[in-house]
Amino acid sequence: MDTATNPWKILHSRPVYENNWIGVTEFDVINPGGGKGIYGKVHFKNIAVGAIALDEAFNTYLVGQYRFPIDQYSWEIPEGGGDPSEDPLASAQRELLEETGLVAGHWEKILTMHLSNSISDEITMLYLARKLEQRTPMPEETEELVIRKLPFEEAYQMVVRGEITDAMSVATIQKVQLMILEGKISK
Amino acid sequence: MDTATNPWKILHSRPVYENNWIGVTEFDVINPGGGKGIYGKVHFKNIAVGAIALDEAFNTYLVGQYRFPIDQYSWEIPEGGGDPSEDPLASAQRELLEETGLVAGHWEKILTMHLSNSISDEITMLYLARKLEQRTPMPEETEELVIRKLPFEEAYQMVVRGEITDAMSVATIQKVQLMILEGKISK
Repeated sequence: MDTATNPWKILHSRPVYENNWIGVTEFDVINPGGGKGIYGKVHFKNIAVGAIALDEAFNTYLVGQYRFPIDQYSWEIPEGGGDPSEDPLASAQRELLEETGLVAGHWEKILTMHLSNSISDEITMLYLARKLEQRTPMPEETEELVIRKLPFEEAYQMVVRGEITDAMSVATIQKVQLMILEGKISK
Repeated sequence: MDTATNPWKILHSRPVYENNWIGVTEFDVINPGGGKGIYGKVHFKNIAVGAIALDEAFNTYLVGQYRFPIDQYSWEIPEGGGDPSEDPLASAQRELLEETGLVAGHWEKILTMHLSNSISDEITMLYLARKLEQRTPMPEETEELVIRKLPFEEAYQMVVRGEITDAMSVATIQKVQLMILEGKISK
């Protein structure tokens, strides 16, 4: 099986929309089955990053905000976007500091995911932040964030009950719970 | 804290792109901080569904395919999209049958997620399928799929090693691993 070669053939491409965050392109393609069709692809200009902070007592931090695209309030781990020219770890450190005021002495990348690979090239890198020190949050002007410090176990139960639905947050909280159960994280 | 009211004000909206799967709209907005700006939202016409199948010996099934938007080969749980007028469970059952030829006697919804809530309204519903019966796969003409039956533990290790990056698959496989560790799934 050849997994290295793209079986989709591109006949033509048209940029159809662009803003500071995304660009949408429509491609005329021949699909792997040999049929002609179109493919609308959403390109993300930033790399999505997230940071789950865990203190020595296994408390974590969630950020609450109203998410415009889903028209819903959402509780999430601290998240944001970073320019691809920037080290994603540096982006995660900046987002954690901006949103919660935390700096961390220990960082570990625990997940890399493609968030919606049937339509977009959006990639996310997710980090565990430990050895925390509290400074002053400095949220962006566009954001209206609520920060909540809570036991990690409560955050995990929010995932189990379906009260956290953001994919980056769900996968990261599951991953940390697995690391705890597997003895890879200790207090 | 008022979590029910959208703090984003919409001044104007313009549809900028549409195909059979997505619609992109640009909104003139006033953000929660009071500043004027634009927001490009990607609306998904289908609900994303996924089905992780687990037989009595704890084998599962992965689907391999080249994903056009990320220009990469990807191993995933069986996934697809369903019209919002259709029961997402029925969509998941259809996708599992089409891609793997499996029908299942027991279905359980185990996750609901928003995949990329800063840009899109894409929602996914993810199911665990058990009591499996093998019939004949019937993939869509556009798809060139490879099906792999393997021990669930191997699929979980592919997630741990970062060889599975699709967010729906990562979260679903982690969820099943947690359910196994918590004694919620038995052979």
